[in-house]
Amino acid sequence: MPLLDNLVGDAEVTSLFADDARLDALIAVEAALARASGTTGLIPQEAASRIVELCRDFTPDRARLAEGLARDGVEIPDLIRQLRLAVGEPHAVHAHFGATSQDIIDTAQALAFARLFDLLDARLETLITHLDDWARREGDLPLMAHTRMQRALPFTAAAKLATWTQPLRRHRARLADLRAHALTVQLGGPVGTADSFRGHAPAIIAAMADELGLAATTAWHSERDRIADIGHILARITGSLGKMGQDIGMMAQNEVGEIVLSGGGGSSVMGHKNNPVSAEVLVALARHAAGLQGTLLQAMVHESERSGAAWTLEWMVLPPLAQSTGAALRHALRLIEGARFVAMK
Amino acid sequence: MPLLDNLVGDAEVTSLFADDARLDALIAVEAALARASGTTGLIPQEAASRIVELCRDFTPDRARLAEGLARDGVEIPDLIRQLRLAVGEPHAVHAHFGATSQDIIDTAQALAFARLFDLLDARLETLITHLDDWARREGDLPLMAHTRMQRALPFTAAAKLATWTQPLRRHRARLADLRAHALTVQLGGPVGTADSFRGHAPAIIAAMADELGLAATTAWHSERDRIADIGHILARITGSLGKMGQDIGMMAQNEVGEIVLSGGGGSSVMGHKNNPVSAEVLVALARHAAGLQGTLLQAMVHESERSGAAWTLEWMVLPPLAQSTGAALRHALRLIEGARFVAMK
Amino acid sequence: MPLLDNLVGDAEVTSLFADDARLDALIAVEAALARASGTTGLIPQEAASRIVELCRDFTPDRARLAEGLARDGVEIPDLIRQLRLAVGEPHAVHAHFGATSQDIIDTAQALAFARLFDLLDARLETLITHLDDWARREGDLPLMAHTRMQRALPFTAAAKLATWTQPLRRHRARLADLRAHALTVQLGGPVGTADSFRGHAPAIIAAMADELGLAATTAWHSERDRIADIGHILARITGSLGKMGQDIGMMAQNEVGEIVLSGGGGSSVMGHKNNPVSAEVLVALARHAAGLQGTLLQAMVHESERSGAAWTLEWMVLPPLAQSTGAALRHALRLIEGARFVAMK
Amino acid sequence: MPLLDNLVGDAEVTSLFADDARLDALIAVEAALARASGTTGLIPQEAASRIVELCRDFTPDRARLAEGLARDGVEIPDLIRQLRLAVGEPHAVHAHFGATSQDIIDTAQALAFARLFDLLDARLETLITHLDDWARREGDLPLMAHTRMQRALPFTAAAKLATWTQPLRRHRARLADLRAHALTVQLGGPVGTADSFRGHAPAIIAAMADELGLAATTAWHSERDRIADIGHILARITGSLGKMGQDIGMMAQNEVGEIVLSGGGGSSVMGHKNNPVSAEVLVALARHAAGLQGTLLQAMVHESERSGAAWTLEWMVLPPLAQSTGAALRHALRLIEGARFVAMK
Repeated sequence: MPLLDNLVGDAEVTSLFADDARLDALIAVEAALARASGTTGLIPQEAASRIVELCRDFTPDRARLAEGLARDGVEIPDLIRQLRLAVGEPHAVHAHFGATSQDIIDTAQALAFARLFDLLDARLETLITHLDDWARREGDLPLMAHTRMQRALPFTAAAKLATWTQPLRRHRARLADLRAHALTVQLGGPVGTADSFRGHAPAIIAAMADELGLAATTAWHSERDRIADIGHILARITGSLGKMGQDIGMMAQNEVGEIVLSGGGGSSVMGHKNNPVSAEVLVALARHAAGLQGTLLQAMVHESERSGAAWTLEWMVLPPLAQSTGAALRHALRLIEGARFVAMK
Repeated sequence: MPLLDNLVGDAEVTSLFADDARLDALIAVEAALARASGTTGLIPQEAASRIVELCRDFTPDRARLAEGLARDGVEIPDLIRQLRLAVGEPHAVHAHFGATSQDIIDTAQALAFARLFDLLDARLETLITHLDDWARREGDLPLMAHTRMQRALPFTAAAKLATWTQPLRRHRARLADLRAHALTVQLGGPVGTADSFRGHAPAIIAAMADELGLAATTAWHSERDRIADIGHILARITGSLGKMGQDIGMMAQNEVGEIVLSGGGGSSVMGHKNNPVSAEVLVALARHAAGLQGTLLQAMVHESERSGAAWTLEWMVLPPLAQSTGAALRHALRLIEGARFVAMK
Repeated sequence: MPLLDNLVGDAEVTSLFADDARLDALIAVEAALARASGTTGLIPQEAASRIVELCRDFTPDRARLAEGLARDGVEIPDLIRQLRLAVGEPHAVHAHFGATSQDIIDTAQALAFARLFDLLDARLETLITHLDDWARREGDLPLMAHTRMQRALPFTAAAKLATWTQPLRRHRARLADLRAHALTVQLGGPVGTADSFRGHAPAIIAAMADELGLAATTAWHSERDRIADIGHILARITGSLGKMGQDIGMMAQNEVGEIVLSGGGGSSVMGHKNNPVSAEVLVALARHAAGLQGTLLQAMVHESERSGAAWTLEWMVLPPLAQSTGAALRHALRLIEGARFVAMK
Repeated sequence: MPLLDNLVGDAEVTSLFADDARLDALIAVEAALARASGTTGLIPQEAASRIVELCRDFTPDRARLAEGLARDGVEIPDLIRQLRLAVGEPHAVHAHFGATSQDIIDTAQALAFARLFDLLDARLETLITHLDDWARREGDLPLMAHTRMQRALPFTAAAKLATWTQPLRRHRARLADLRAHALTVQLGGPVGTADSFRGHAPAIIAAMADELGLAATTAWHSERDRIADIGHILARITGSLGKMGQDIGMMAQNEVGEIVLSGGGGSSVMGHKNNPVSAEVLVALARHAAGLQGTLLQAMVHESERSGAAWTLEWMVLPPLAQSTGAALRHALRLIEGARFVAMK
């Protein structure tokens, strides 16, 4: 892990989008496709069994995959070549049968987001719990509310905490909602019409969705609104935490002193400094995520039946966006740990 | 209307965010607040009646409002001054009672978005109808699908049209969803705690929501996730239409000739040109909307109990975003009017 | 002027990009083209004189222009039609001779930016003068420097002011530089090769550049790096002023009290507030400008010899970007007027 | 290297921003500071020699650095701790004497950009050479120019190539310009005033600049216009290459056939496909870079004397921006290798 990722990265999220996880997911999708295709009779049951069995510990040659990706713009053609070689005759042709690269990649990506949503939801729950605990402990303390960067009127710590907690509850609800609507199997074949599945596509999709824990829908190769929705919830979570970070940074100013943080950062020369590093990083992460989401929305202009340009752009944007969200939750949890309010005088 | 707005603007949407509509909405919100406050007993019924009555045709002095806005950063302080002057004694003090500028502005903005959502939904419905009609007329025509900017395999016009129509149906569902969740009354008083409403806030909010056709919720002064959601659906709609525009531009290329447009644009020197102007404008609008939404997400970092910086940023971004969405629907409707597919040879 | 423009707009900048100025500039460019084309012998001198004379007070029919713009995506085809009608036979054909719409529009836009750069440079000069004066008056006052939102070490008002002034000096230098390199005549004819000018293009461009006060260069229809540079300096200026606004907002906090502002904004309910409205608006403008520049850079992907999509996107972004820069300078000047530092205790 | 980086990354650029290079640069800056401080007499010559000597092969404990970075938001405090321990008494205190973390990090980053600019300039030169060669080989071929996605008029391959080459020449000129103006030593001490260097700052800065091959200037801790300029040139280069990629993708369409590419990408199921992968990736990289630059401009709002939020945001954005630029040059070189034009029929 690069040094800087200790500050702005998130090891757990990184692992969800790392090569190991990606290859596992791609192979899992091929296996699910084969199993469902066998069940529906699109491919022979024997072929399906052979492919599913093989996928259990298929380890692709990564150097070849890397070359293939650099050449083809996707790693699937070479992965399928390797997979079919391993499956051997006469079943080789039934691996990836009817599918296109995008079917496998988009579905594998949905799997990664399903894992991410679990992780984010769990951290949100923990964060809400900690904030609720804090409200129970110190909610009655009088604080000064500030509007337009000026002292406004007194309110309570509970009121302050509510402005941080309420959006988090809405984020959890939206994550659950998106899970059902945006994390869907992709299966359309070469040009999205599912013709290559000879009428079995709905049944295969349903079976794959069931096995993989995703939602079922018709193919959406060039309809990227769900991808935009995924990016939006990530930027939205990170944005809310950026607001919390900005607030805490303001309250932790020496002159304001409404919050005391434990474990702030030190300076190379000013020994008295107790820098609200996590609060600042939360703001940086929120701004980064906002920018990435603006770019992801550019990728909605996905021309024709598959745009290499728009699709590749998504791949560049989604992992750092997920990373920023994960890192933001990590910093938020750390930031409030040991923090305490100081009652207004 | 500036010349350029004939191309990239939308007169109907402009009118929703124009000064006339804004002032009407601000005054309507003050009236609804007064009525509800009278009903709940927060202010005398007589005062409520006087204020509601006055608001029916209260015409503020705009020059003074402009000065006030330039000085205070919001027009409400001067509007209230004018309103109270008109209400007169002894009821003046009961106008805007308990409220803060942000209560009125955010609620009035929600009203504008309610009108906008109606307009967008109606246009989406019309557009879907036209696309469905087109599918009935020409859906069986064979076209060539293109992936990664290369000819892929034949498919049908119906399959092509489905990639344009399906996201639009999802947008309509999401608009309905956001109407219930994101277009909400804002009422929190000076620092968002609703203390100034002396326990009547829930009842007043419910009554205002009912009268104004908005949803009821606790105050959300510094919680801007709903605003981000509104921007997102606008960018998402515009993005889908940008994809349709890009597709049509690709298909209308002379060398491709899969679509024939009526009423393309002319050139100042090349008489033979039939430029797919609306298709190009759809792409431009989608990219503009994507950028604006990226900026709107920056405004989620809304420090303390009211951030003048973040809030003002929203005001700069939301109207052009709404405008782009409206203009995109306008161009999409115009673009497909008289368009016809040309069967693949 | 819409109400909100009293806060975030700039009347002078608006006028530079308004229809009147735009049409004047388009006609001035046609006149310069005709004069230069007459001088070089591309068109008859008599025709040139007739056109130049006519352009002196040619008032196009705006309703027709609006229709033309909506249809053609540019207003030039209809403008030329009107202009040629007015020129009459036998000289009509010599108006706009050899040129394409983009030649006229890009050159007219360069003219608008030349005026804008003058205006920005003058305001920057004034702002620097005021900041220098302030340094002379109060530069010795001790202030507390803050790093990472914490008190760091004492320094002086002069040191603080220097961090605001130094970038402004660099902006002035860059504006001068861009004037010579980025504000250039556009003349390439229908597809940018200048063939339609029959060898006279270099001489015509030189003469037009001379008359219009722009730089001369070969055509750059689809090379938009200069446009990106123009956007960048605007975002850069606005960004520096956003930093100044953020600083002043931080210093003007009641708890910090290192700066006292005159004429802050009032609240609708909290009489004691003295809101640093201009400081906040500076931050909002900087963030808006940053976002717009991110979008402008998207327009560098300008396909083929002329991209209606990319070009239209520029038109949507550049005027609000210029507006934000002008408004930022206006607010910066207003903000420091009457501001004074408060020596650290 | 992650798989995807084989497509959208650049190994050489990655190495410039990797931990090894970063730590080397940080230590080189500490060494240059010590040497210059010894020469000017700020610290004893003996101390300077000891520090410079030690820095020659000082290998910091990275696990400790990682912890320090996570805690302090910068790795310098822990690096200095380690360095001083290694220097030992009595000279320890003279390492990093007078400096602040930002002095070292910003200067080390300028070093990385100096290397990057060399690399980019060399690639730009090669690319221009190849494009010029191409023009010599095939420049006379007639092609069809396209405006607004429609056939316009014939022109030549040379004219087409010129639209790709000319911006590249301007980029080289700008890189040279920025080298002199934007890649500067940072040295200001804790709060940017250079007081801690007891009058020696100008001499130390000059000596460091000379040793490190950077420009000399007063401290610019919170003045980030030069950083914005660096990002801008990167986005500008990538944008121009995105235009070239988009053009080539358009010309390589089967129906257009104006360019033949060698070594396009294959499909997992459509054997006849020859996908213009590099052309598409160029577009994706341009859009990504545009978005990143929009975010970098947000970091100009750098509050007070050092903003952890704004500074951290720069760190997240600059390496992927550099990466995108490097990858774009790599793809551009690959894309035109073996490409040939097909004369218009």
